[in-house]
Amino acid sequence: MELACSRRVLRKRRPLTISRGTSSETENLFVEVRHGSTVGLGEMAPIGYGQAQTAAGAEAELVALAGALAGLEPFSLYAVEQAALAAGVCSAARAALNMACWDWVGRRVGQPVWRLIGVSGRTAPTSVTVGINPPDRVRELVCELFAEVGPGVSLKLKLGSPEGVEADKASFEAARESLPPGATIRVDANGGWSDSDAPAMLRWLAERGCDYAEQPVAFDDAGALECLRERPLPVYLDESVKDSSDVPKVAPFCDGVNIKLMKCGGISEALRIVHTARAHRLRTMIGCFSESSLSIAAAAQLSELIDAIDLDSHLNLVDDPFCGLEMANGCLVCSAGPGLGVLPR
Amino acid sequence: MELACSRRVLRKRRPLTISRGTSSETENLFVEVRHGSTVGLGEMAPIGYGQAQTAAGAEAELVALAGALAGLEPFSLYAVEQAALAAGVCSAARAALNMACWDWVGRRVGQPVWRLIGVSGRTAPTSVTVGINPPDRVRELVCELFAEVGPGVSLKLKLGSPEGVEADKASFEAARESLPPGATIRVDANGGWSDSDAPAMLRWLAERGCDYAEQPVAFDDAGALECLRERPLPVYLDESVKDSSDVPKVAPFCDGVNIKLMKCGGISEALRIVHTARAHRLRTMIGCFSESSLSIAAAAQLSELIDAIDLDSHLNLVDDPFCGLEMANGCLVCSAGPGLGVLPR
Repeated sequence: MELACSRRVLRKRRPLTISRGTSSETENLFVEVRHGSTVGLGEMAPIGYGQAQTAAGAEAELVALAGALAGLEPFSLYAVEQAALAAGVCSAARAALNMACWDWVGRRVGQPVWRLIGVSGRTAPTSVTVGINPPDRVRELVCELFAEVGPGVSLKLKLGSPEGVEADKASFEAARESLPPGATIRVDANGGWSDSDAPAMLRWLAERGCDYAEQPVAFDDAGALECLRERPLPVYLDESVKDSSDVPKVAPFCDGVNIKLMKCGGISEALRIVHTARAHRLRTMIGCFSESSLSIAAAAQLSELIDAIDLDSHLNLVDDPFCGLEMANGCLVCSAGPGLGVLPR
Repeated sequence: MELACSRRVLRKRRPLTISRGTSSETENLFVEVRHGSTVGLGEMAPIGYGQAQTAAGAEAELVALAGALAGLEPFSLYAVEQAALAAGVCSAARAALNMACWDWVGRRVGQPVWRLIGVSGRTAPTSVTVGINPPDRVRELVCELFAEVGPGVSLKLKLGSPEGVEADKASFEAARESLPPGATIRVDANGGWSDSDAPAMLRWLAERGCDYAEQPVAFDDAGALECLRERPLPVYLDESVKDSSDVPKVAPFCDGVNIKLMKCGGISEALRIVHTARAHRLRTMIGCFSESSLSIAAAAQLSELIDAIDLDSHLNLVDDPFCGLEMANGCLVCSAGPGLGVLPR
């Protein structure tokens, strides 16, 4: 198989502020896998925390890997993964490569990837995200977002404000008051709470009808998870769970895990996380970084196996470079076309 | 999709004695899945321990399920599994149904199942089994078996004799003396040792170069596994592990798990066990009941993901009803043909 890479800046319609900072654009890497007359496409979005992953770094790693892949066909998903892991390729670049191979396989056999995974391609409603903002701006954004995407979706509110938990509470109250009838709300602290604040915040949110909270405490503070052994509100862990080997470690401290292709290395490893999480009786969620509808379509292929869908980054792009992923009643609609079902615009 | 079932008695060339008794033939169930112009085949072999599963019982369960499957296509592996689980269909019947759907998918898209799983279809050498017998007969059987299958394979010796551990030791010594140069030996007690005998037997076997031991103590005695927390020899658990949800429970008590399609419900759940076991840093083994080369071919599709291959029951049949699964240098060779790569003889 042959690889080709290209970088492209994706601009956000609205800048997004989370506990770690604000982002108004990202540089993403697009990967083309070619073998015979069939092409598969994949995307890498940067990861800004932990060991940062950039499009330029990912491109260099994949270019260096091309020789090792030359003797493999994209059907050999497992060998391709092993080669990339052995070469130390970062998780987001591995995700781009893995989804490009899945896209290739689907196009080669003329079937959508969801069908090859054995599921239906149906998805539950996604949530849409409102970042950290003053309460008045939260109200505006909630109204704008629901007007744009229509009913059916849930609201995911970013908390963990640097201004502290009182600012988070004001923001949550503002969001809740602005929700259309029937819509539900969940929050994501991105590790922004201390282990002394987190239990009280979870209790406070539980009393106000919050669905669940994501990553209440820091992922890189091993002891902090201990405060989550008893949970007044369902907790999903995100930054604490990179791949399936993390699931047994976090199982006592959460009700579910948030899977992201960029963290785990692609569709194949995402499936492994689903299976491991279910073996532990954990729920699953699938989320995203700043991804176009190519990578969002890749994540959506697994939706039938996932309890909570959080795939909305493509809705906040000025120019989504791909088309083919539709939305109906708050739900992503995977194409019945081959592969990942999206094409360059 | 439409289902058709037929039962058939498979006779063994040599009766096999294990800790629970002797078997010289089994009645297996063969399942045909039809949708459009494509057909997929699957096989159920009976399970004699725990809640016994018979071909007649499995046939009745699948016939009752046919209505619920009528609206599904075999691509919908997940929905088919869910329907069978909801109807309480036994694991071995679900295995037949699941492998028939995988066979159908592979034939429908013109690819072998191993390629759709993303692996190469290469397998490590299998082990071949010698049952519980007096030492002289063990010597004869080891020589006969290695003469038949040629070099490359390992020997799996059944222990857990009702005559006690001294009989097991005599049998092991007889087998070890009869091995051709380079061949290795592993044992399977099928839960036949008490938790007071098991640690001493594992130590005794470790001192004599045994590869590993399977299921030293009873699967249905919850406390017995405790004696395996410290292990002088690698231990694989078999009867204690039905499906992926058992893996977290047994992880502290073993080095690996033995996957069997009949226990877990098919290729899809076998993959889930592999993923869960790897997340726990456990090794994996794949084994069989009294299966023809149809079901053995289904298990062999996963081989590249498995550490220890124990797929030999088809070699001990008087009339294997399927052909297409070859063997070279002790390794099963998956066909490059579509589906499971075997056809009725």
